[in-house]
Amino acid sequence: MKKFGIVGIIGVGMIGGSIGMALRKRRLADKVIGLGRNPVKLRRAKVLGAIEEGYTDFDKGLKNAGLVIVATPVGLIPVMIKRAFPYLEDGSIITDVGSVKCQLIRKIERFLPQRIHFVGAHPIAGLETFGVENAKPTLFQESNCVLTPTPSTDANALRVIGEMWKGIGARVLLINPVQHDELLAFTSHLPHLIAVSLIEVLCNLNKKYKNTKEFIGGGFRDTTRIACGSPIMWRDICLANKKEILNALRKFKSTTNQIEEIISNEKWDMLLRKLIRAKKERDSLK
Amino acid sequence: MKKFGIVGIIGVGMIGGSIGMALRKRRLADKVIGLGRNPVKLRRAKVLGAIEEGYTDFDKGLKNAGLVIVATPVGLIPVMIKRAFPYLEDGSIITDVGSVKCQLIRKIERFLPQRIHFVGAHPIAGLETFGVENAKPTLFQESNCVLTPTPSTDANALRVIGEMWKGIGARVLLINPVQHDELLAFTSHLPHLIAVSLIEVLCNLNKKYKNTKEFIGGGFRDTTRIACGSPIMWRDICLANKKEILNALRKFKSTTNQIEEIISNEKWDMLLRKLIRAKKERDSLK
Repeated sequence: MKKFGIVGIIGVGMIGGSIGMALRKRRLADKVIGLGRNPVKLRRAKVLGAIEEGYTDFDKGLKNAGLVIVATPVGLIPVMIKRAFPYLEDGSIITDVGSVKCQLIRKIERFLPQRIHFVGAHPIAGLETFGVENAKPTLFQESNCVLTPTPSTDANALRVIGEMWKGIGARVLLINPVQHDELLAFTSHLPHLIAVSLIEVLCNLNKKYKNTKEFIGGGFRDTTRIACGSPIMWRDICLANKKEILNALRKFKSTTNQIEEIISNEKWDMLLRKLIRAKKERDSLK
Repeated sequence: MKKFGIVGIIGVGMIGGSIGMALRKRRLADKVIGLGRNPVKLRRAKVLGAIEEGYTDFDKGLKNAGLVIVATPVGLIPVMIKRAFPYLEDGSIITDVGSVKCQLIRKIERFLPQRIHFVGAHPIAGLETFGVENAKPTLFQESNCVLTPTPSTDANALRVIGEMWKGIGARVLLINPVQHDELLAFTSHLPHLIAVSLIEVLCNLNKKYKNTKEFIGGGFRDTTRIACGSPIMWRDICLANKKEILNALRKFKSTTNQIEEIISNEKWDMLLRKLIRAKKERDSLK
């Protein structure tokens, strides 16, 4: 038996598909099974090498799966876990890839039986693309995967999930769900809403000028790339992380107001210092 | 004699160097001369093939140059033009590459003698990198270059500058300087300040969390890439386009406030519609 036995992936999209491909390429699983509602998508995932078998029926698909990864949009994760656990053997491990953790984990821990172990996970490796067509086995190499254990998390299950992510090339970080959601509100959810807002401002300008697109360069394009992400996925994220996102938006508005004031009052030396500091900080992220 | 005769480039950085390389590669100039304050930088530009000769002395460098391109930061453009024109022959053409046009052109037209022609230009092809080391002869291929004629612009000079940009691969757009500055405030200057603001919010979060960088993915990285741009260049742009930038910031704040309100009031359907519209619009920019 290989390291992770039979692995079930519920939701074989860009992330789920990439996990499947990586597990198969590195020969870490006895078999990778895909589960989903749409047989066409499951067939496509099989053709692309993300899974070995695909099932719409949880009863058949989850038989003997010791490890189940839920890679659906955030809003569906608890529903899918609830649907899956009656078919799982004692000691099975369920994990997810959701971008928001607190609300999700609270819900899951409320209904999950003691015989099944859950570990919250969030690979920071998403792209603005989605669907199994965009999956690739190297997606997680050199990326970070955050695990968010709580006091109820089983230590052995946490170790297994950590090893799985390391096995497919990721660095593993541990942090509690509350801190995860606060941090991600700033590093991921806020930039997304900012990109959407920039696009909207441009749309409004289209009423005055017909050819605004011709004045767009690489800067605007990069700053707004993430607005191409899945609308449903991002609505779910906003819904699940409302409080922290509103906090991040408030902090962002206060820095924007400062910049506005500096320009309005022509404090050019102060603006230069701000630009220098931002450049230094951004250069360090390369 | 080749199409554009002897061409002088004042300020041989990333943009000036790329123009020089492109003119030389396509054999459009008899000779490309670089002018600047720093002999070390001029030597580097020569080694990299951006220019054939470099001078710190305008008297020597501009001899017989029928076409002069000023590619310094915006704040220096009028100063450089003022310094250059006494050495130029009647009928010579000066152009620039500044990202802001109104204030600049007003200043230049005030002191420029009738015997010298000026045409304002802005190639929309910048990167966050700078210096001649980052110049490349293909920078303008498939890009747009905006020319901003005024009622005083000489028709023949406008035609020559248009042909130069087409000659090195750019598409040429004509627009008046006022509209240019309004449009660019939204498509370029606003995204820059937003990126700076996002970085600043992250810096503030560093006081609470030590390892915020580990939670940063491709989204945040792309959204803030332009914050790596030259601080002096961007201060000059804010200074020269103050009014339009403040207008763009106000419009942006109003869309951000709307998004905040939608999330705060849990209008998830309305949020989804906004995300779908933004995705559609951003997809169309690819």
